[in-house]
Amino acid sequence: MNTNLNTESLLELIADKTRELLRAERCSLFLLDKEKQLLWSKVAHGMGGKKFNLTLDKGLAGYVATTGKVVNVRDAYANPRFNPELDKKTDFRTRTVLCLPMKNHLGEVIGVFQVLNKRGGLFTPPDRNLLQIFSSQAAAAIENSQLYENLKESFDSFVWTLAATIDARDPMTAGHSRRVTEYSLAIAKQLGIGKEKLELLKYASILHDLGKIGVQEAVLTKPGRLSKQEYKHIQTHAALTRKILERANFQRHLKEIPQVASSHHERVDGEGYPENLKGEDIPYLSRIMAIADVFDAITSRRHYRDAMPIKQALSLIKEGTGTHFDPVCVEGFMKIPLNKLIKIIKSDVVSHFKEEDLKLLSNYKTSQFLEMLKKENSSLSAEQRKAITGFNRYYNRQIEKQINNKEKGGKMGKFA
Amino acid sequence: MNTNLNTESLLELIADKTRELLRAERCSLFLLDKEKQLLWSKVAHGMGGKKFNLTLDKGLAGYVATTGKVVNVRDAYANPRFNPELDKKTDFRTRTVLCLPMKNHLGEVIGVFQVLNKRGGLFTPPDRNLLQIFSSQAAAAIENSQLYENLKESFDSFVWTLAATIDARDPMTAGHSRRVTEYSLAIAKQLGIGKEKLELLKYASILHDLGKIGVQEAVLTKPGRLSKQEYKHIQTHAALTRKILERANFQRHLKEIPQVASSHHERVDGEGYPENLKGEDIPYLSRIMAIADVFDAITSRRHYRDAMPIKQALSLIKEGTGTHFDPVCVEGFMKIPLNKLIKIIKSDVVSHFKEEDLKLLSNYKTSQFLEMLKKENSSLSAEQRKAITGFNRYYNRQIEKQINNKEKGGKMGKFA
Repeated sequence: MNTNLNTESLLELIADKTRELLRAERCSLFLLDKEKQLLWSKVAHGMGGKKFNLTLDKGLAGYVATTGKVVNVRDAYANPRFNPELDKKTDFRTRTVLCLPMKNHLGEVIGVFQVLNKRGGLFTPPDRNLLQIFSSQAAAAIENSQLYENLKESFDSFVWTLAATIDARDPMTAGHSRRVTEYSLAIAKQLGIGKEKLELLKYASILHDLGKIGVQEAVLTKPGRLSKQEYKHIQTHAALTRKILERANFQRHLKEIPQVASSHHERVDGEGYPENLKGEDIPYLSRIMAIADVFDAITSRRHYRDAMPIKQALSLIKEGTGTHFDPVCVEGFMKIPLNKLIKIIKSDVVSHFKEEDLKLLSNYKTSQFLEMLKKENSSLSAEQRKAITGFNRYYNRQIEKQINNKEKGGKMGKFA
Repeated sequence: MNTNLNTESLLELIADKTRELLRAERCSLFLLDKEKQLLWSKVAHGMGGKKFNLTLDKGLAGYVATTGKVVNVRDAYANPRFNPELDKKTDFRTRTVLCLPMKNHLGEVIGVFQVLNKRGGLFTPPDRNLLQIFSSQAAAAIENSQLYENLKESFDSFVWTLAATIDARDPMTAGHSRRVTEYSLAIAKQLGIGKEKLELLKYASILHDLGKIGVQEAVLTKPGRLSKQEYKHIQTHAALTRKILERANFQRHLKEIPQVASSHHERVDGEGYPENLKGEDIPYLSRIMAIADVFDAITSRRHYRDAMPIKQALSLIKEGTGTHFDPVCVEGFMKIPLNKLIKIIKSDVVSHFKEEDLKLLSNYKTSQFLEMLKKENSSLSAEQRKAITGFNRYYNRQIEKQINNKEKGGKMGKFA
């Protein structure tokens, strides 16, 4: 429902019905990529669902796309423009071809629509009329789909921009919302959560700290420990996230964003906030976010402390099982492959990871890594020791760079 | 391009071609409104473009929508379900009817598709197949269109929410972005600005103060006059608005949002900020926003002063012509009808305007009002005096209520 799959199936429907009504053996629909000067197959009978592209300099489709003309070919192999390559590949023999340009509402060619091999004869002028109709419908469907994709991209980039902006009020937490989103999605993937819920989780994670807009900077960026009152003030951000998001009117499958986003500080033992929800009363997706949020906080440097050593950080998550965190969600977190984990932790700092390091780390899940960290060095295999060293090389470097960057950047430095 | 007009024309195309291919006299397409239990006409031949609705309890279309069945009627007037009302209204005689349910991808009925009066005979099973195809295509197009509308609504509500949230950091300026947007659009309307530019202006206005997220609260909400340094700090918000918005990836026709939004403090004499642009180097839409922004600021109460009397506020805009403001844009502002102006000024405060007051005020443009205010009372007609009194009754009431509300609400009070 929330994707544009409708368009795909609409185009397939159009192609199938065109083939049926025109009594053709095959029908195909190509989209023109003007920049790359290619035609991309969108629907193509007889290709087993495989997508492929054609250059514009040869073949009837290329000719039609370039000139905007219609061609009705009675004997393909007698036509010098016909390109027999596809026939060879698919063990097919093209006899007749009716090929039309697809045009958008401005009259620009956006693709090509064609039928092959009319059963029992040649393609007629009425066939051409009918193909023209279906071609117009396909073109309109494609334009609508592109409008939707553009708008979706606008929306997404705007939501990300907003989150980054709010994070940047405190340079110490820049990148926090993005990393929390990536951890949340990585956990959800391990838990096998479906597509629509993933989208909900994505937006809820990006926006979980939106309410910080209402927290005073003096408190937000205070270098020392917070007083009880200051801590209470910061806690208001969770409820505020909800109140703000409730004013927006999200699509049906995203309606729960306000509740999911604002419950990321709830704890399964009921000691969290803002509503002291307990166990399964906390939205499942928020229980995932709780881990992501804490893990990012402790593996990043904050005003009042350095980033935690990784062993301590992972132990803290593990020890929170059943009190702070949902056991199933912790299990999901612990299944994240180590290469994935390190890439998220340092996404803001390290621009290039060595392929061999990532490959080595991909052999370990987070839980195995924690076990390794707890053992004596002497009881580990050489490969295990190598993995720990590899991980820490990135992990520790990040901390140094973070400190440097942040002291250079200063308040809102990213924008200055 | 930026609207869903494509869908409308796609549906018309489908209806036209269906009529042609099925050799029918009329084709019509209805959408089902489940809540209201009505069928709305979306395309209907022979109705002169007029839209209308049908109840579900009578007529063949109602029967099809309710049961999901297909009907092929050979003699309409012999069929007890046929409703001859529309025939009477449009001077038409229905003979044969082929009527199908339109279903979405979940198989739910979302409308009805029908053809009337096959030329030279009865509707056949092949006709039914063809109608089924076109009906599926129409249904998919409608679903896509609804997806787009939902997403658009999400996006819009999210942008509004964000702006309201940023305004609310300082309760004194709550509602500012919304009012600036309304003034800007009202001016643009007087200047005859086209649809796509209006949309650009709308978003740029909503978001013009986004950069205030980077301004310190202590300065933003300071009760007294600002020091030179504090004033400079506040001015950074314009450039920051641009930097933040540049990170988002807006649709093509909205690409200029960052520049338009961030230039609302430029002055035509080049004394504005952030770039000291002069005259026509300032985007046209920003020159409109400059008036909207100043007018809202001076007609609202601020930390360091009360709202200005309306005569003084309008004079200030007028006197800024050619130095602060673009003369053409001031002219546009001065053409706003007085009823429109007062409604925007007090949209946050007054929930009900007397119709007779609005009617009286609609007789005057803003420029005429300013002329009246400058005259001696004795030289005005009775109606003119009545208009001034009427305007001020709302205008002054607003000021009082604003003060009360804001003192009650306090910081972020709207969310507390």
